[in-house]
Amino acid sequence: MEKKHLILVAGGSGSRMGSATPKQFLLLGGRPILLRTLEQFFAYDSTINVVIALPEAAIEAWQKIVKTYAISIPHTFVVGGATRFHSVKNALSKIEGEGLVAVHDGVRPLVSHATIEFCFGEAEKSGAAIPTIPLSDSIRKKVGDGKSVAVNRSDFCAVQTPQVFRLSVLRKAYEQEYCNDFTDDASVVESAGYKVSLVQGNVENIKVTTPADLIFAEAIIKKVTGNE
Amino acid sequence: MEKKHLILVAGGSGSRMGSATPKQFLLLGGRPILLRTLEQFFAYDSTINVVIALPEAAIEAWQKIVKTYAISIPHTFVVGGATRFHSVKNALSKIEGEGLVAVHDGVRPLVSHATIEFCFGEAEKSGAAIPTIPLSDSIRKKVGDGKSVAVNRSDFCAVQTPQVFRLSVLRKAYEQEYCNDFTDDASVVESAGYKVSLVQGNVENIKVTTPADLIFAEAIIKKVTGNE
Repeated sequence: MEKKHLILVAGGSGSRMGSATPKQFLLLGGRPILLRTLEQFFAYDSTINVVIALPEAAIEAWQKIVKTYAISIPHTFVVGGATRFHSVKNALSKIEGEGLVAVHDGVRPLVSHATIEFCFGEAEKSGAAIPTIPLSDSIRKKVGDGKSVAVNRSDFCAVQTPQVFRLSVLRKAYEQEYCNDFTDDASVVESAGYKVSLVQGNVENIKVTTPADLIFAEAIIKKVTGNE
Repeated sequence: MEKKHLILVAGGSGSRMGSATPKQFLLLGGRPILLRTLEQFFAYDSTINVVIALPEAAIEAWQKIVKTYAISIPHTFVVGGATRFHSVKNALSKIEGEGLVAVHDGVRPLVSHATIEFCFGEAEKSGAAIPTIPLSDSIRKKVGDGKSVAVNRSDFCAVQTPQVFRLSVLRKAYEQEYCNDFTDDASVVESAGYKVSLVQGNVENIKVTTPADLIFAEAIIKKVTGNE
């Protein structure tokens, strides 16, 4: 397979978590979430080239974590931008050469190696691949004025990360001007005229953004490590 | 408040759980999921009138659970139908008098009393209320032929249960012929011309349908009971 790169987007402030600690640094089974996410990709491929996009205010905390946990996983970081788009663009500017690049949420530590592999494998063939899972709840579309309509949930799927692209594709896509409709990297790439393939994600691969998510993630980690 | 009724829909076969036990009977913190769901509503209002819709094959198992756990919560049950629509219709035919009726998934044991209260309170005012939460993942719409398009997740919300209705409204709605577009009770009620109000659900109120869901629910129960 081609050379693999990883952009970890770790820009959130943690306001939904009700905690002063940015959510990417909250402890999960005794280790900061972002560190667990990094370690999960490193365990998948120890040659992966990693760039982390961090808010300026979080850089000192991250450097402290690297020291405290004696992290020897090679990585660089960039200061995140005003939006996710700008953070990814900054990180992308630090990646040289060719190959495939995964863009992944720093607060999705439970991504499986199978999900990572499916995404890289499909992106190598088609240029762009994102992991999806079926929706577990019914959904409704809000149509304004407090009104809403039922829609068929089987027509939709939930989108996770990593979103993996051929580097040349992602670079071309990020030459576009920023637009409010860019909800994730797939939408940026599609807006540039490319097709995005869907592959299977894993249900545990949640974005850890609420206290309930943290409880879930703790439980999964305990289950996997047998460390109850 | 008016008289409260509850229809618990417990029709699933548990195929997604990879278990021979129907998912509503799997143990959660040592007690069957359906029993925990029943107990949660009973704790909210011990005068609630309960009808459980069960698959024929599950009735004996449920009766055994009632005996084993010495359950004294008054309830009746009906045999579920071919679809959720038919199960609810059967259960509804057993409810006499007037008041408000909650239709709830038997495998949502983590519904909060606040969610139940919001739904009953709003249904008493407007006739129909359902709990919703924001989507945590991005979603895409599948448009056939392997293609999909990004949609704005903030235009959508995830729908939970209990879905609560004035009895007269739900009875009128269930006089309709069954239609494949009926995804939940709200869609049946809307199809009969009524408006449905959205109230706030709780993020823990998941449908326990996969092993990961069960791990999450176990962790939440442990957290709540302090029983680690």
